[in-house]
Amino acid sequence: MKYDRVYNFSAGPSMLPEPVLETVRDNLLNYNGTGMSVMEMSHRSKAYEKIIGEAEANLKELMGIPENYKILFVQGGATLQFAMIPMNLMRAGKADYIVTGAWSNKACSEAKKYGDINVVASSKDRNYCYIPDVSDLAIDSDADYVYICENETIHGTTYKALPNTKGKILVADQSSMFLSKPVNVSDYGLIYGGVQKNVGPAGLSIVIIREDLIREDLPSFVPTYMSYKIHADNDSMYNTPNCWAIYVCGEVFKYLKGIGGLEEMNRRNEEKAKILYDFLDSSSMFKGTVDKEFRSLMNVPFVTESAELDAEVVAATKAAGFDNLKGHRSVGGLRASIYNAMPKEGVEALVDFLKDFEAKH
Amino acid sequence: MKYDRVYNFSAGPSMLPEPVLETVRDNLLNYNGTGMSVMEMSHRSKAYEKIIGEAEANLKELMGIPENYKILFVQGGATLQFAMIPMNLMRAGKADYIVTGAWSNKACSEAKKYGDINVVASSKDRNYCYIPDVSDLAIDSDADYVYICENETIHGTTYKALPNTKGKILVADQSSMFLSKPVNVSDYGLIYGGVQKNVGPAGLSIVIIREDLIREDLPSFVPTYMSYKIHADNDSMYNTPNCWAIYVCGEVFKYLKGIGGLEEMNRRNEEKAKILYDFLDSSSMFKGTVDKEFRSLMNVPFVTESAELDAEVVAATKAAGFDNLKGHRSVGGLRASIYNAMPKEGVEALVDFLKDFEAKH
Repeated sequence: MKYDRVYNFSAGPSMLPEPVLETVRDNLLNYNGTGMSVMEMSHRSKAYEKIIGEAEANLKELMGIPENYKILFVQGGATLQFAMIPMNLMRAGKADYIVTGAWSNKACSEAKKYGDINVVASSKDRNYCYIPDVSDLAIDSDADYVYICENETIHGTTYKALPNTKGKILVADQSSMFLSKPVNVSDYGLIYGGVQKNVGPAGLSIVIIREDLIREDLPSFVPTYMSYKIHADNDSMYNTPNCWAIYVCGEVFKYLKGIGGLEEMNRRNEEKAKILYDFLDSSSMFKGTVDKEFRSLMNVPFVTESAELDAEVVAATKAAGFDNLKGHRSVGGLRASIYNAMPKEGVEALVDFLKDFEAKH
Repeated sequence: MKYDRVYNFSAGPSMLPEPVLETVRDNLLNYNGTGMSVMEMSHRSKAYEKIIGEAEANLKELMGIPENYKILFVQGGATLQFAMIPMNLMRAGKADYIVTGAWSNKACSEAKKYGDINVVASSKDRNYCYIPDVSDLAIDSDADYVYICENETIHGTTYKALPNTKGKILVADQSSMFLSKPVNVSDYGLIYGGVQKNVGPAGLSIVIIREDLIREDLPSFVPTYMSYKIHADNDSMYNTPNCWAIYVCGEVFKYLKGIGGLEEMNRRNEEKAKILYDFLDSSSMFKGTVDKEFRSLMNVPFVTESAELDAEVVAATKAAGFDNLKGHRSVGGLRASIYNAMPKEGVEALVDFLKDFEAKH
């Protein structure tokens, strides 16, 4: 690490690739010879149209997004999507939600404002430490869609196989795993993610939606800003978008292409996660909180035998220059978020530190 | 101007103060010794809490915001506010709108989704080139609020005196004049502005709302993200905000305090605008499109005798290193947006160029 930067294990916003930050810094007052910062650029200018156009094209290439999907850059975070999804996708007024942690739970609560929501599976019984069997669910024959949070940031779980939706549209919140590995976009009707966990600065969600799901005839109370059609018809420029975040994400997309795309990113993420999980499995002081087969590659919650010792470890990591390892209050203990931009060396250094801590206690 | 930067007359996003951009650049990979970029910082971290806390305190001081007002940092631009305002402020289900151009018109159309909207004054008859008499309007005795766009970015008008609302709450879109001059906040129930015109990077609106207008009992269809109470109760951190834009705005607030606050900013803005308007009034080729007493200090639309000559001038300014002078299609001609960060030298250079152009033709 250069510039005295710390290993930042925050659940989001979190680390960005250093080469991207360097490019952004070097272009801060004069982007690419335009004589202005990207922050100062009219979103209707040729220079900015190129930035957003390239970002979209590179994302399409990275994820292999089919031609019949639209990419939308929307403000308001996952929280706004929790409402936008039912507002835009409900026709029969029913949807099935799989609740596997804090974020799918919030999405489910919000959707209840707009229709009849059925929880078809939940892992609440064991504090969301696993993904329930989703191979044969009681999907409603009238359900407009089936909703999942594919990687739960707080509880640290991820799906090993997508649910059998019995022909219904699958909607997935991929916020904390976005671009961490290849996904087959055509398995989904809609994928979205807040970019601030794995891709870019906060204040932007990316929505990837199958074109036939974009409709005009929305309920009259739907705000203009919350119509997917408005964003789609105007190429995410109905109003001024979060130009800066789109720019930085675009630089991250280029970086990901440069290292070899999502296959290579996934290889690195698996390698990094293995280092940490292998340690947890061999430790007698620390243990992971999630059932092995559903462990997230991105968010790794773990605990010691007591809350006191947890707090001691958190304080010690902080003092040693590792940041944001305190676990979320609903799980306790520690959580290491090891997103795309966390280098392998960061995970190795953390494991060395924890080994040393254990040896000394 | 340093770094080969251009004079950017964009209506927004637009120029930011160079000292702010330099600070941002110098802290890009390591903010203030934290070892990380502000883009990488957890919004729940102490470092970020300090950033947003100071931004809020400095804005309060700059604008003289009374204790019974809350400052909210919200995503989604003015477009989302167009719906959020009626969703949150309507009780009787009626509101009075003054329509003075494109933006108040859009706000008015959106509000019609949520209640009975009365246009109590309009300047449409002369393509919005003036502000109608607002001293004795037919305000509805049941109106929940009276709405204005205090500076119309496209049409280049501004109010010289606020409307007599006959005791009703005044709601003002100040997007394109935000922090350009002192305002008396207690004259308003709610002031808001998209920051991307005069203050910071796009993707953030600042809402200043009197606390007694923040209510809990909203219609059931209102998305959680669109409740002012949710944002107020959580100090704009219900979900991850646009951390980067808040940070940059905070640096702009410090800069404004440093130059002497809004009185000094206003003095500079009046001085800059006078240079341009004096030229327009003396020119036989160019003329301003707005009635003199309602001219905006921020957005200056002007025309020549023909669309062909307008286009020729725009092309010539572009070639000479002045950017974004093409007028909006609904007014035509040219438009010079001379926001806070446009230096006096930029306006002088433009006037010199236009004088020279006129002399040669």
